[in-house]
Amino acid sequence: MKLYGYWRSSCSWRVRIALNFKGLPYTYEAVHLLKDGGQQHTEAYRAVNPLRTVPTLELQEDGQVRRLAQSMAILEYLEERYPTPALLPQEPWARARCRMLAESVNSGIQPLQNTAVMQFVKGELKADERAFAAHWNVRGLTALEELVKETAGTYCIGEQVSLADLFLVPQLYGSRRYGVDLSPYPTLTRIEAACGHLPAFQAAHADRQPDAVPA
Amino acid sequence: MKLYGYWRSSCSWRVRIALNFKGLPYTYEAVHLLKDGGQQHTEAYRAVNPLRTVPTLELQEDGQVRRLAQSMAILEYLEERYPTPALLPQEPWARARCRMLAESVNSGIQPLQNTAVMQFVKGELKADERAFAAHWNVRGLTALEELVKETAGTYCIGEQVSLADLFLVPQLYGSRRYGVDLSPYPTLTRIEAACGHLPAFQAAHADRQPDAVPA
Repeated sequence: MKLYGYWRSSCSWRVRIALNFKGLPYTYEAVHLLKDGGQQHTEAYRAVNPLRTVPTLELQEDGQVRRLAQSMAILEYLEERYPTPALLPQEPWARARCRMLAESVNSGIQPLQNTAVMQFVKGELKADERAFAAHWNVRGLTALEELVKETAGTYCIGEQVSLADLFLVPQLYGSRRYGVDLSPYPTLTRIEAACGHLPAFQAAHADRQPDAVPA
Repeated sequence: MKLYGYWRSSCSWRVRIALNFKGLPYTYEAVHLLKDGGQQHTEAYRAVNPLRTVPTLELQEDGQVRRLAQSMAILEYLEERYPTPALLPQEPWARARCRMLAESVNSGIQPLQNTAVMQFVKGELKADERAFAAHWNVRGLTALEELVKETAGTYCIGEQVSLADLFLVPQLYGSRRYGVDLSPYPTLTRIEAACGHLPAFQAAHADRQPDAVPA
């Protein structure tokens, strides 16, 4: 499998954790979201993914090249295709709560502070894009801290690493970038620290990717 | 089951279609997103859903009241709990494509034009919130029109109604509200028209809800 991604893209990062966690080897192709006006806008990449987003998962099946965009869709696909080790709990209600937590990041926070939106808020609306991002991070994390308490153990859902953790960890890295004070979210940061001990999370970290330019 | 929703909320609408499609009876409790500064911000509703969003699905299980937010999480839960009639294809790659299309709306378009964001863009940034919404609709629908062609039949995924259709139909209603010209998306509007013949979609339509205030 091949993953088109960007080191600091939280959506790419989620998929990297899943691939590592499930022990699936992959090659990584960096798509620089800022260089040359954004390599995701090139004709070549638009043929790979018309959404002009990362990640895109590429795989060969039945002699065909197949491509999938949208991190949640990729993660559900990997879970169905390679169910062990699992990233969704077995119990139906726990699965539902896990997806709810993941979606609170996926559709509730990240879309409001991705590269395209930040550029638009700054460039077109002439507004402070970091303040815009921080606003939605604070609002989203406040709710997430409350929601996660119902199920949290070492991880978001008890003692099992799940999709919810894959969405949380990269999001908090982004929150810090936008200057968000994370002290009101002790449950979230405790879970983040626990995940930080796991090799699958360590190897997926933004700063450890081949295209990383750490501060 | 009880669904907290708002007639014009596309996220509530998706869940209404699924409940109808699967023949699951439910009661509907309207949460007016604009009246009284937004009923989703009341203390009573925040106890129901700390995200301050609709929909919330409420159900009783083992004598307990259980609540679930986030439309995608609700839909996946309903699909697992009540698998027939199915809203996800059986074939793994078709399932993946279906979720990708749904997520292109769920995380790619809707979050950038929901009530909270529109109010913030207008009130805080003093910008044209309708133009902001229209921008992300056009960008998202352009990609979606291209992506859907790979699998489209009568519906987004061949001849089977699926989650992708549940996300598409309410989104296009929103797109029109923001003045988006839909003529560049003939595949999407053709699928929308086909869905419009189905009772499950008809009964879920915004204008037919008890709290509707049609123009």
